[in-house]
Amino acid sequence: MSDISIRYQTGAPQHLETRFAARAAGMLPSEIRALFAVASRPEIVSLAGGMPNLSALPMEMMAGVVNELILTNGSEALQYGSGQGHPKLREQICDVMALEGIRANADDIVVTTGSQQALDLISRIFIDPGDVVLVEAPSYVGALGTFRQYEASVVHVEMDHDGMIPDSLRAAIKSVRAAGRKIKFLYLIPNYQNPTGVCLPADRRTEILNICREAEIFVVEDNPYGLLGFDKPSPNAMRAEDSENVIYLGSFSKTIASGLRVGWALVPQSLKDKLVIASESSILCPSNFTQLTISSYLADQPWRDQIASFCELYKVRRDAMLESLEQHFPAEATWTKPGGGFYVWVNLPAEIDTKALMPKAIVAKVAYVPGNAFYADGLGSWSMRLSYCHPTPERIREGVKALGGVIKQEMKRRGTALN
Amino acid sequence: MSDISIRYQTGAPQHLETRFAARAAGMLPSEIRALFAVASRPEIVSLAGGMPNLSALPMEMMAGVVNELILTNGSEALQYGSGQGHPKLREQICDVMALEGIRANADDIVVTTGSQQALDLISRIFIDPGDVVLVEAPSYVGALGTFRQYEASVVHVEMDHDGMIPDSLRAAIKSVRAAGRKIKFLYLIPNYQNPTGVCLPADRRTEILNICREAEIFVVEDNPYGLLGFDKPSPNAMRAEDSENVIYLGSFSKTIASGLRVGWALVPQSLKDKLVIASESSILCPSNFTQLTISSYLADQPWRDQIASFCELYKVRRDAMLESLEQHFPAEATWTKPGGGFYVWVNLPAEIDTKALMPKAIVAKVAYVPGNAFYADGLGSWSMRLSYCHPTPERIREGVKALGGVIKQEMKRRGTALN
Repeated sequence: MSDISIRYQTGAPQHLETRFAARAAGMLPSEIRALFAVASRPEIVSLAGGMPNLSALPMEMMAGVVNELILTNGSEALQYGSGQGHPKLREQICDVMALEGIRANADDIVVTTGSQQALDLISRIFIDPGDVVLVEAPSYVGALGTFRQYEASVVHVEMDHDGMIPDSLRAAIKSVRAAGRKIKFLYLIPNYQNPTGVCLPADRRTEILNICREAEIFVVEDNPYGLLGFDKPSPNAMRAEDSENVIYLGSFSKTIASGLRVGWALVPQSLKDKLVIASESSILCPSNFTQLTISSYLADQPWRDQIASFCELYKVRRDAMLESLEQHFPAEATWTKPGGGFYVWVNLPAEIDTKALMPKAIVAKVAYVPGNAFYADGLGSWSMRLSYCHPTPERIREGVKALGGVIKQEMKRRGTALN
Repeated sequence: MSDISIRYQTGAPQHLETRFAARAAGMLPSEIRALFAVASRPEIVSLAGGMPNLSALPMEMMAGVVNELILTNGSEALQYGSGQGHPKLREQICDVMALEGIRANADDIVVTTGSQQALDLISRIFIDPGDVVLVEAPSYVGALGTFRQYEASVVHVEMDHDGMIPDSLRAAIKSVRAAGRKIKFLYLIPNYQNPTGVCLPADRRTEILNICREAEIFVVEDNPYGLLGFDKPSPNAMRAEDSENVIYLGSFSKTIASGLRVGWALVPQSLKDKLVIASESSILCPSNFTQLTISSYLADQPWRDQIASFCELYKVRRDAMLESLEQHFPAEATWTKPGGGFYVWVNLPAEIDTKALMPKAIVAKVAYVPGNAFYADGLGSWSMRLSYCHPTPERIREGVKALGGVIKQEMKRRGTALN
């Protein structure tokens, strides 16, 4: 009633969208987002999402951890905490990162609401509109969205089955600078990259670090999957080799539980104060409750064994996916063979538009993410990301088989159309 | 070792701070922040912080809530969730807001990591560098910091003991526009404002809403303390009267527990999608775990009674503070008489610089926040914010007595100096 009267009182309602800031033009829905509503229907085999598989996490144990936490330390866990993050958890994060060769000081860590928030804050501190950010081709859709919101210009650097190609990085730097544009940083995911699943070998890490130092470009190393290597341990983190020129982003979303939203940034000392201030402005402080849940878990539970259980669970699924791709995908398709993480990247013949193919896949009860979601420049139209992290091996086989059928049919149809 | 070798290899280390974005210049530490390290020492009576008092929250009950949540719904609570926030919690938030006269649709709510994140996202969506944001004089320090990060120009509007003065708002709009500047929104805290504790009466709410609608300025109503009225219920929320032109920010930090970091924005429909996208870019999604903890608590526990317990606890402390101010502060001082919330605002004779006085107060084992922290324009130097939410009534009396002594001595010293 009152709403209506106000509307008539003042004539047409005022449109908030006419008052948006310039940067709001970059706030656009991602390709993945629109898909998820459909892909989450139970009858669809979703090879689209990147949700960790929590079936290996003992819920009785987690319930015990949080119960004990509140009973023994509830007045701290339920209170505001430090903007930088809880000191005890920051110490424990140093132990976690030591597994990948990083020697860090807890004072250089800022805990964030998932590592997505760290990415947002780094962007906020560094990106002026028009600045160039270099990323892998393809790259993480959530990072592309954040860079776009800060009005960065994203330039992709070519990859092969060993990740970013150092010579392509050199060429990209040269050509961007020849065009008179400013490069702010290189963003990459060296381990089991999202969306390709590939892992950057140690020698390329060193070479890329050298290129970036020489070119005075700093590196943002995003490493959510580093401890999820199935076949052999991952190479040392890039941050292990260079503590001055690398900002390292870590996360417990894939190794403990994503619903806690706890990630972190390990940064060069000169950046820490700015990062804390930016985070305080953004969220005041991260949740003591979720931080201390993780801290108690790390202190009292066999977390390394738990990560090994996750690896075993994902390895079985990875194997199921690779086997069924061999069986059911057309000979013209190629795909990556990830040694860890959640994803396989598939390239199809160039005439297949994976975005246009989606409705047919949904009819066949399978979902994936079209490749062009992972490019800022519209490429990727004949590629797709398949994730094996969440469904059972049986469902993965079923989904890959159905998808292979859809693709073959489309190739046939196209072949006919071309004849 | 490797750090050193790298440093020598490339000459001087590269300074990240030379590459900051323009907006990073606005990322400055707040007055309050530097204080908290000192004020949190146990021997100091802190009248500085705004930490809720959790002594009224039964920890056995909270432990039971989270234990049960993980056992019955752990696979959802520990998983990624919706960027907009959990649908069940959004429904329950509608019930909470109904207590202040708001009729809302759960689909127009976006759950955030504390309402600070909502403030950050609203700023991100609307503020272009140089845009004017109107705020109360004084206003919440965390809001001022966020507006500064988005390079807004903050203009304060005069208040009296009934909050923002409508005629002063009219005058401010006129003078800002006469100077050719663009006003983006009015930000205010109508209930038991931070830092003054004053409450805007119903008729002023209506008048301010009318002024803003006529001037085509939207209102950001920040309401963390609305349910914490001690003497009588708060007037209806401004959003209850205008659903088109008000963005409403709510929080569970003061009514349940701040360590969960759960707040929300209720926005006009035309804004919701943009806000969700901005939030996804910022944190991907809010924590399902903390959201469902609150959801379970609201569903199964007597939360209205719990809020009444909090009110009782804070009322006793408010009374202790007002009584001891009467007893121990000089006759020249004036202060607000809050009907709820956490804060009293004190004005001292203009020659007293409350920032310069802090070291003397610390020596006397009491801390407060100097008034100029709450102004973007350097005013407030003879004012201070005293919070009564956290210490015991005895400690509050002790702290106010000590502080009164420090102020009287300073006035005497000044008086002597002037003679």
